[in-house]
Amino acid sequence: MHVHDLPTPALVIDRDLLGHNLATMSAALPGTALRPHVKAHKCTSLAALQRAAGHAAFTCATPREMVGMAAAALGDDLLLANEVLDPTRLAALAEAQQNARITIAVDSAETIEAAARAGLQEVLVDVNVGLPRCGCAPADAGRIADLARGRGLAVRGVMGYEGHLMMVDDRERQRAEVQACVERLLAAHALVGGDVVSAGGTGTYHLHDRVTEVQAGSYALMDTHYARLGLPFQQACFVIGTVISTSAGFAVADVGLKAMGMDHGNPAVQTLDGQPADVWFLSDEHVTFATTDDTTLRVGDRVRVVPAHIDPTMALHEVAWVVRGEEVVDRWAIDLRGW
Amino acid sequence: MHVHDLPTPALVIDRDLLGHNLATMSAALPGTALRPHVKAHKCTSLAALQRAAGHAAFTCATPREMVGMAAAALGDDLLLANEVLDPTRLAALAEAQQNARITIAVDSAETIEAAARAGLQEVLVDVNVGLPRCGCAPADAGRIADLARGRGLAVRGVMGYEGHLMMVDDRERQRAEVQACVERLLAAHALVGGDVVSAGGTGTYHLHDRVTEVQAGSYALMDTHYARLGLPFQQACFVIGTVISTSAGFAVADVGLKAMGMDHGNPAVQTLDGQPADVWFLSDEHVTFATTDDTTLRVGDRVRVVPAHIDPTMALHEVAWVVRGEEVVDRWAIDLRGW
Repeated sequence: MHVHDLPTPALVIDRDLLGHNLATMSAALPGTALRPHVKAHKCTSLAALQRAAGHAAFTCATPREMVGMAAAALGDDLLLANEVLDPTRLAALAEAQQNARITIAVDSAETIEAAARAGLQEVLVDVNVGLPRCGCAPADAGRIADLARGRGLAVRGVMGYEGHLMMVDDRERQRAEVQACVERLLAAHALVGGDVVSAGGTGTYHLHDRVTEVQAGSYALMDTHYARLGLPFQQACFVIGTVISTSAGFAVADVGLKAMGMDHGNPAVQTLDGQPADVWFLSDEHVTFATTDDTTLRVGDRVRVVPAHIDPTMALHEVAWVVRGEEVVDRWAIDLRGW
Repeated sequence: MHVHDLPTPALVIDRDLLGHNLATMSAALPGTALRPHVKAHKCTSLAALQRAAGHAAFTCATPREMVGMAAAALGDDLLLANEVLDPTRLAALAEAQQNARITIAVDSAETIEAAARAGLQEVLVDVNVGLPRCGCAPADAGRIADLARGRGLAVRGVMGYEGHLMMVDDRERQRAEVQACVERLLAAHALVGGDVVSAGGTGTYHLHDRVTEVQAGSYALMDTHYARLGLPFQQACFVIGTVISTSAGFAVADVGLKAMGMDHGNPAVQTLDGQPADVWFLSDEHVTFATTDDTTLRVGDRVRVVPAHIDPTMALHEVAWVVRGEEVVDRWAIDLRGW
């Protein structure tokens, strides 16, 4: 099948650009130095390529991602880098321990109690290194680890995600602030012990020489938000749309806000000759963009819509079409959606 | 089951408030005066209630919504208020004509040709009444209708959605601008003929005494965006989250931007005693919100997250839990997702 025969909106992954991104990251952070985050793609077929590139340990954000990875025989070492209290889902994770290594983040007595009651075996202490989200205070990490060990859980170490520093474009300031976060995480680690010090993301992957692993995910497919940082990763994913209507000064394609993560603002639109178009707005099933007096764009033509945020964009699609050039070479289920 | 036993994030519909909204709209626009738009809920179970309230004709935005409504025996009169060129999906719509009445919007020679080739029988001329999206110029509507009839299609009339006027909060200005749109649509209708003049939405449903039907959808479940207009509809849908982490000054619940449509900005967060919380930001699977010194909120407590935009929020969930008070009384599949 030809890419232009795909029904639209069609989420497309460029296999060669994806390969470039995976190889570039694996060269920088080989093997277990990278724990790829599957929340950025929610696709076991893509995760299998990351494993083939040498990364056997993965990061997840939801129980369903964990269970799905285990079911896909990608469960060598799965970290749920998130807090969960639901007993049914924790029981599913405990069940998955039969054929997968399951570790879950904890940051409170309640999350420890829930994990222990469900029969989970291994945890990581989640530390707040500066992002106001989950994680205990660094000075409290030893107490949390003791609580967990007291409930019979093995404590593998610490994690601390400096998400607030991903998009800092002053390189020197970013480096200094990441180092301060790492200091907090290492201070917590000194209180906790264990083999794992896990941190980082695509925006800071190159700044982590003092942790044992980096949790990057967006590097594989990328988006316009991360593209601004000048990282060595290429845009490998976009949504193909069909122009369904044209008027004087604008055109409309069938890629709307139900096909794009919108929390980082509008996506970019390119005509197939690579020209960027000025995006006016998105509706549920439409993107309206400007055309010029000399446009040759016609109803039926295709456009590329480039996500501003890859993670929620993946969550809106059932399948990804894998292409090499103009040829569709595979169809991957986005099989880790939901919770 | 009790609402607080639901696994979170849980999309919840309050059955009584939904009933209030349906009854309020049916009183204002009874029977075929309303053609409910299913894009706002993507749920055949909810559409069945709208039909039971007297509305046998529906509006859809995607072929899958059309085919799903026909399969659910809700196909008395389905309008695809959108342009489609894909021959496979148009063939599925033509197939659905065997047990449903199928009408599709057209606004160009290309969309007419695609509909005719697929074997569709009935169309509506989509007219641009002021929103820069699909639709032909009003003065061009007669030519479009002639083209369609020349290809053997029955032309049922015109539609023109004044989406740019939904959120105008100056009531007099809104009324005047809607009337101007209706004038354009009626001018087009004079050139086209047919029995149908279709327009409007939840924000303008009360301003349409000169069209034959209104295409409102959001009124059934509502969102914080529409709530600002002071319409007589109640918020009937929210997402229940669990507090998974607390720190000094803030707390985190497990309702992230993969569970909420984000194009209208952040959702609202309420604790279960009805107190609003100041939302700081959403991540993929988290909402961080402010707490006060005297908060009693603890890990494991539940919060309500109210969508800023209902349509894309529905597209992110597989199921809706229907509640009366604290009791879960039904589970509805969000079965019209995708394209």
